[in-house]
This record gives sequence, structure tokens and C-alpha cells, in this order.
Amino acid sequence: MSPRLTYRAAGVDIDAGNEFVADIAHHLRSTYGPQVIENENGFAGLYSIPGQVGLFARRCKNPVLVASTDGVGTKLRVAQMAGKHDTVGIDLVAMCVNDILVQGAQPLFFLDYVATGKLERGLLVEIVKGIAEGCRQADCALLGGETAEMPGFYGPGQYDLAGFTVGMVERARLINGPQRTRPGDAVLGIASSGLHSNGFSLVRKLFFETLGMTLEQTVAELGTTLGEELLRPTRIYARPLRAVLERYRVKSVVHALAHITGGGLAGNVPRVLGRRCVARIEKGAWPRPPIFGLIQRLGEVDEAEMFRVFNMGIGMVAVVAPFYADAVCRRLERHGERVAVIGEIVQGDGPAVELV
Amino acid sequence: MSPRLTYRAAGVDIDAGNEFVADIAHHLRSTYGPQVIENENGFAGLYSIPGQVGLFARRCKNPVLVASTDGVGTKLRVAQMAGKHDTVGIDLVAMCVNDILVQGAQPLFFLDYVATGKLERGLLVEIVKGIAEGCRQADCALLGGETAEMPGFYGPGQYDLAGFTVGMVERARLINGPQRTRPGDAVLGIASSGLHSNGFSLVRKLFFETLGMTLEQTVAELGTTLGEELLRPTRIYARPLRAVLERYRVKSVVHALAHITGGGLAGNVPRVLGRRCVARIEKGAWPRPPIFGLIQRLGEVDEAEMFRVFNMGIGMVAVVAPFYADAVCRRLERHGERVAVIGEIVQGDGPAVELV
Repeated sequence: MSPRLTYRAAGVDIDAGNEFVADIAHHLRSTYGPQVIENENGFAGLYSIPGQVGLFARRCKNPVLVASTDGVGTKLRVAQMAGKHDTVGIDLVAMCVNDILVQGAQPLFFLDYVATGKLERGLLVEIVKGIAEGCRQADCALLGGETAEMPGFYGPGQYDLAGFTVGMVERARLINGPQRTRPGDAVLGIASSGLHSNGFSLVRKLFFETLGMTLEQTVAELGTTLGEELLRPTRIYARPLRAVLERYRVKSVVHALAHITGGGLAGNVPRVLGRRCVARIEKGAWPRPPIFGLIQRLGEVDEAEMFRVFNMGIGMVAVVAPFYADAVCRRLERHGERVAVIGEIVQGDGPAVELV
Repeated sequence: MSPRLTYRAAGVDIDAGNEFVADIAHHLRSTYGPQVIENENGFAGLYSIPGQVGLFARRCKNPVLVASTDGVGTKLRVAQMAGKHDTVGIDLVAMCVNDILVQGAQPLFFLDYVATGKLERGLLVEIVKGIAEGCRQADCALLGGETAEMPGFYGPGQYDLAGFTVGMVERARLINGPQRTRPGDAVLGIASSGLHSNGFSLVRKLFFETLGMTLEQTVAELGTTLGEELLRPTRIYARPLRAVLERYRVKSVVHALAHITGGGLAGNVPRVLGRRCVARIEKGAWPRPPIFGLIQRLGEVDEAEMFRVFNMGIGMVAVVAPFYADAVCRRLERHGERVAVIGEIVQGDGPAVELV
């Protein structure tokens, strides 16, 4: 039998499935640390949590598992139009992992579900390669996955992806924004890489249906092709956020984190604020990537709508104690992030966001 | 905001998504025990593992997380044809949970991913109701989920489902069949409820394309309608297997467990056998549900092929120390399972299955 680890392919052609799993084995292994227990031909992925001895016992007395699932949405269609399949896996990991990071958790492992009409081995290997790349960026193990061949459900070259991640955090260090945020806190915005994985229904309609543009087209304003811009992978904030959270293990510095996805700043920041807290955010406080201006102008979308659909250049928001705002910014920058103080928490009828 | 817990709906219509999440909140809550930490509007599901104090510390020194992902496959199409959506969720949970049970793990929690073209609230509520029912049967929490609205990907009334589950087992009690099975062991077969969730490409082609049958049609041989038979949910073996594993905490009684899915007995049993082990299974040792005879006769499928595609009436195999075979059978029967000794492990060129 092939070294299929616990990654399974289900469907009508069992041999093709097994060959595919052999092809991706080294991508999976590239994400493994000592906590992954190999389980060749096994039924499930195995991940060992160190027990009562050693480092873990001192650091984590009441561990909380933090889990999230997500998909990439219709950005997949753009990848399928472009025939470029090695970056949507990064988006998939990002969408799941960023959601557990905001609770203060460190990612442990990831599993994926890939559904397609007919198993096209080369294409699926590209997808898994991207997922493994995302897992390496997030320092988590690609512990397993399922590839489902469902003829009649998906057309040629079509597929859907779902991801699932589990992280862990000591209960006392769980980030629960609504209980911790308070007026006076600084609101930091960490840059997105562009659209990330939201707003693609609007994007696709505008560029391809209304304007009849192609992915190969170079757009001067973007300094690249439309395809390159639209498919740039979602940023994974695992390492920079871990650096900050590990720096302040005792002091309460990071009061809340919000992953900016569908609904934008206005939809996601209130989820982590207390009742009396309003995040007053200055729209001009950070450089806005040109893709958003392009969409707004060509689509004649009003600005409020833009802020409801897109991240507008901010992929992650951190609400921090004001005294530490600069230090947190510098630490994030040292890990390669672009960060700005984009506002502050004021007292008001919250939880809400006020864009000024 | 609605009590959305951490279950999220993504897509174009945010209000419909929120209303849907409000509708399903009580289904989710029906699966919650004290270990679930409520996280209203949060980004991820939270599940508390008791730490070094109390019962857990004594029972689990080196906990291993066991994770699995799976889908329901084209059985979904039958549900969609029938307009019956409250049982495929049980299949989804079963496919994932049975895979972690065979490693000796107890399920902790489950997350689901539902992708559809247009969010039809009533339909999705039915799906989640089924998932919650499956989670109650498996004694695990439906900790979260994602509902993705992807227009253009899925037609009206069409959807795909992916499930993810995490369980836990003490390292020393992890079931690793290949290291434990030995000649002389008894092979027990635990009855399936019928087709479970595999072989549906063949089933759909035969009944609907070749024979032009309908789901409403009563089939005398089955004693029910074709739709009822095909949609009967996959059996979840969590409680009976836990009863057995908890009974024998010290003795090595259960040497291996195999979940019989795609590939049948011949494809799945060898995954848990050692190199010198051949499972000699007597095909006549258990009553075969009539659906398999019907498919074999009407489809003129040869018996070897039937055994490669279908479970043939056995949903779970347990390889046990022969001295305890009867006691294990009785214990499983007390938990409502139908069980038979269906064979034994003999020495040979394994891992393999020999059907006699």
C-alpha cells in the first residue's frame, strides 16, 4: 500500500486515490513536528499533547481547545478560471487559523476536505501543496484530509474546499474581548495582503461580467495583472501574534483581536468589544491598497458598502492597552507586518464601530 | 445580535445568515456539556479539557488528540432527490466519528461545513438538526460550523457537507491494530444499518438510471420504500464501543477496530492487521440485509465486487482476544448492537482478508 498517512481519498477510482495520496505525502510530512504520531493506513490523525510532565504542565494547567472551520468561498472560482491552484490552500488555512488566533490560541493541526467531480491528480496535488505551505506558515501540522470524488456534483476542473483547525490556549490566557476591552484602548490595524478571501461575489461580477476583463490583463493602477492581484493569498498572522502574546504573558496588554473577514471592520470588530465600547477608527490612518480604490471607482460602489464587504487593507485588528501600543506595533513590524494605530476605543452605545 | 454562538454563515445575504443561526441555536445547545465554553459572536469554538486536577489527571497522563474529516458523498444526491434533509447530518457525524472510535478515542466535539448555492433556511435547519442528532448519539458537542453561500457553485436545492471531529485517548490506550493483532484472535462483525454512506454512485446508477425506479416505490423484498432504505442513517458506534473499552481498561482485549466504509471488508480490515495476519471471514456468518441481495441481483454485480464496494451488513469490525469474544459480543448486544463472530485471524501473507 502507498504511504497514505491518514490522508484519504474516497470515490470511484481507488487506485488513482492511492497514487494521489502517495504524491502528497512529502507535502504533509513537511508540516510535521514531534507531536504528530504517524499512523500509516490509519483511520484518523493522531496528535500528542504532552501531559503532566515537562514544560507543558507548567504552562498549561487548564487547556482549552479552540476549533474553527471555514472555506475559501467564490475566490475558488477565480483560481479555477486562472488554472492556478497552489495558493487557495494558503487562503483556506488562513481563514481557519486566523479565527483561532484571535482567541489567543496557538494552532496545533489542520485537516482539509476537498470535493471534486473527477480526481485530477496534478490539480489536487497543487491544492494540497498550497495547504501544506499555509500550515508551515501557521506552524501547524497538516494532520489529515479527505478527498471526495463526487461525479455529478462538481463539473470538470471544479472543486470546493473546507478546512478545519484546532489550537490550544491556557484558559487564563484565552482572549475574550468583550470582557477586556475598555475606553482608552488603542486600536491597531495589521495590513492585509489585499482582498484576502472575501467580497469575491462582487469582485467577480464587476470585473468579469460587467467589465469583461480578463485575469491576464495588466492593470497599471495595481502594478500587476488582475489575476495576480485577486489570487494573492490571505495573510496568516500566526507568528507575529504569537510573538506578541508570548512577550506579554503576565500583563494584560492585548485585550482583543478581530479577524477582518466578511462584514469588514464594521462587522467584525464589534464582535470583540464590550457593551460600552465603540471603536472610533480613522479611515485615513493606513495606506489603502489600490485594488479597493479600483473596485470602488469602476463599480461605483459607495464607501460605506466598500467597508461592509471588504477588509479595506486591514486583515487583523488588535485592541491593546494604550501604554503598550507602540511596543506592540514595533514587535509586529519586526515580524514583517505593516501596522498602524488606526483608532481608539471610546465610551458609547456599543459594541460598535464608528468610521471617521 | 442573534445568539449565533460560534456557528457562522458566510455569503451574500448576512441577515438571512444570522436568522438561520438563531434558528439552529437550540439544536447546537442540545449537544453541549459543561466542557463547552460559550463564546457568543466569537470567532472559534471553545472546548475545555480538564487539567491536572480531578479525575482527568489520573485517567489521562499523555492525551492524544484524534481527528478526522469526511463527507457523505453522493448519498447527498438521494437526500436531495427525496427532499429529506434531516438524516444526512447523522451520516456525516457517523462517517467522522466512527473513524476516530477505531483508534480508541472518545469524541469530544464536531464541526460542520455546509456549502450551498442559495441559503434556504428551512432546508439548512433540517440539515443541522440531523447533525445535532448525530452528535447526541456520539456524545460529542456540535461546537461550531460554517455555512457558505456560493452562488454558481451549487444549483438550487444542492449542497455539499463536510464534517470534522476531534476525540481524545490516553496514549497507552490508543488502539494500533497492526501492532496488536495476532493469529488466533476472533473477528467480530457489528451490524450496519444498511448501505451506510458508501457505494452510492453504483446504487444511483442502478436504481435511477438503469432501472428508472423512484424513491417512493415500495420494494417488497425490502419491506419499505426505496427512499427509506437508501436514506437510513449510518450507524454511530460510539456508546457500545465505549462500553467495551471502558470495561477492559487494563487487559488488552480489543486488539483492533475497523470502520467498514468504501472498499468494504477487504479494503478496510487489512488496515488494522499486522504483517503476518490474515482475517479469514466467513461470508455466511451473519444475516445479510436484503438491500445487498437486491443490488447484486438487479445489477448483476458479482459477489467479489459487492464486497469491494459495500459493507455487506457489517459496519464495524472488532478484532479481539479469543477468550473474551463472547463477553464482548454480549456487552455490545446489551447496547443494542447485533454482533456475530464472523471469522478469525490466521497466520499468513498479510495484512489481508480472505473471504470464505
